[in-house]
Amino acid sequence: MCSLKIKDIGEQGLLKILQKFCPPEIIGDDAAVINTQDGKSLVVTTDMLVDNIHFSENTTSPEDVGWRATAANLSDIAAMGASPLGITVGLGLPGDLSVSWVERLYQGMTECLGKYNAVIVGGDVVRSPNITVSITAFGQVNPTRTIRRDNAKVGDAIVVTGVHGASCAGLELLINPTIGQNLIQADREALIRAHQRPKPRLDVIPILWKILDSQLANHLTSPAGMDTSDGLADAILQICRASGVGAIVEGEKIPLPVAFNNFNNWLTQEEALEYALYGGEDFELVLCLPQQPADKLVRQLGGSAAIVGTITIGSTVILRNQYLGDPDRVLTLSRGFQHFGS
Amino acid sequence: MCSLKIKDIGEQGLLKILQKFCPPEIIGDDAAVINTQDGKSLVVTTDMLVDNIHFSENTTSPEDVGWRATAANLSDIAAMGASPLGITVGLGLPGDLSVSWVERLYQGMTECLGKYNAVIVGGDVVRSPNITVSITAFGQVNPTRTIRRDNAKVGDAIVVTGVHGASCAGLELLINPTIGQNLIQADREALIRAHQRPKPRLDVIPILWKILDSQLANHLTSPAGMDTSDGLADAILQICRASGVGAIVEGEKIPLPVAFNNFNNWLTQEEALEYALYGGEDFELVLCLPQQPADKLVRQLGGSAAIVGTITIGSTVILRNQYLGDPDRVLTLSRGFQHFGS
Repeated sequence: MCSLKIKDIGEQGLLKILQKFCPPEIIGDDAAVINTQDGKSLVVTTDMLVDNIHFSENTTSPEDVGWRATAANLSDIAAMGASPLGITVGLGLPGDLSVSWVERLYQGMTECLGKYNAVIVGGDVVRSPNITVSITAFGQVNPTRTIRRDNAKVGDAIVVTGVHGASCAGLELLINPTIGQNLIQADREALIRAHQRPKPRLDVIPILWKILDSQLANHLTSPAGMDTSDGLADAILQICRASGVGAIVEGEKIPLPVAFNNFNNWLTQEEALEYALYGGEDFELVLCLPQQPADKLVRQLGGSAAIVGTITIGSTVILRNQYLGDPDRVLTLSRGFQHFGS
Repeated sequence: MCSLKIKDIGEQGLLKILQKFCPPEIIGDDAAVINTQDGKSLVVTTDMLVDNIHFSENTTSPEDVGWRATAANLSDIAAMGASPLGITVGLGLPGDLSVSWVERLYQGMTECLGKYNAVIVGGDVVRSPNITVSITAFGQVNPTRTIRRDNAKVGDAIVVTGVHGASCAGLELLINPTIGQNLIQADREALIRAHQRPKPRLDVIPILWKILDSQLANHLTSPAGMDTSDGLADAILQICRASGVGAIVEGEKIPLPVAFNNFNNWLTQEEALEYALYGGEDFELVLCLPQQPADKLVRQLGGSAAIVGTITIGSTVILRNQYLGDPDRVLTLSRGFQHFGS
């Protein structure tokens, strides 16, 4: 056992082992919730990025590295139903990195933070052979108003707050500039922008709480939800597993980027759906709540927000795709077919 | 300018440049203080450690790496006068590192946290070519009860909460086991222990606030202070600079480890003083407060707590060493003589 290596069990395997060192009540959501003495709760989340593993000079400018890392953390704050306060930044940097690279990184971080009234409140800078960026974000939440994964109820509508698949398609276009030649320039740029400058959906939170506050008492419980940083399929499956429920997801109701409609021999509809379900890093929210407030939320959010399915009894998540005439299939974490472009 | 490298300006130079991205009111202390909506303040601090730069397998077990990293962050929380809530841990790990190394790291972290009623509330684990440990600690403080560097007043006594020089001497003994041969075993072990298992002085905070609460109204302002992670000389000089005052430090009043008294040809008194002033990582507190509460604090803390000097008008910090018959000299950030053992 002593010689067991991290590569043998992977990062997820290691995280499971390390959970024994954490209080069990604060594990399993996008961010930890800590009750402070005065009845308010603090929400904390942390992410580490390493050069050549999580980002690359080829696809991501330092400003975009800063924006994306910040957006990912703020998205975790949104996924808990909280309001952001600030972030700390730990930086490991090689001595021969240019100072302007670091300034541009901070520029991207503060641009993103500025849009959501949050600030950099401190950090640490150390020497390291590899560029390493460690961000911890914290926010505030009313303890009776948190979004948790384990709160989905049979009959709830499944709301997604926007399109899926854009970030992954944008990354694909950056890595392989020869693909998608028939895409019009504006669509190509929109996809790339979705990858480089994702928007955490903090705007959804006050709208959501306002709708729920106006509901009758029997709807006053908090919704289930999480963000789609690891993909839409992952988010729906995790919510269902944590809540002990199943779901039916209507494939044709999943909102796709406009560029996906201009297929032009670029993506089949099956491939477009795969991007949407498994692409990841769109940083939208999946929220499960009763039909009436769900309808209201989708209407008030506008844009591409949509109800994509329903929570059901059991534990199976069914993907229904009537548009393609496919039979129902079971939604899993693994893609059903070969990944486009690889 | 574009080609300016980080190694050209150093980490401190880079931090100065990056300050323009942070709100000015939260820069310059051991931790950031953020006012939350309800009148309580959140205190946040972050530290990053990189293998072979901040720790080494030769001198530090994984448990000790975990303990020391945690203690350093909790010390920053104490230095603000706050109570700890928890920490997040970002880990960058090579794939061929053993899982048990990481478990032992967490063991050390939770041992330290357990002593101070704090917990690990989350984190991230990613692949990295180098072991990287990024800890963010947060605590709570009453906004009218924070310890800041810029609050020292002429006439204040300078209190140190314990001995200085032990951690650095312990590290020296680990690196060069041949030195200090005449040290008795218990003294040697105490010094090494001081390096491997430093204790953040969170115990001082409730005692300090209790004394200040019992003072008359004219003493009700908060004290100045910081921790001595970067050395005692550094702490006193930083407080004086931030407060726009000078000081007289009585060299012979600085509490030294017991082992330093058994000189046995190991350390001259001049060298012992140098360890105490410049060694660093003792994680004690330096506090500046009026004479009467300072006396009370030293008495109630017991142990090696002592008043080592007085805040004066001006900007010069004088080191007085009557015991050695030295003339007064100006205390600076650079050591006055060659570092022992190097």
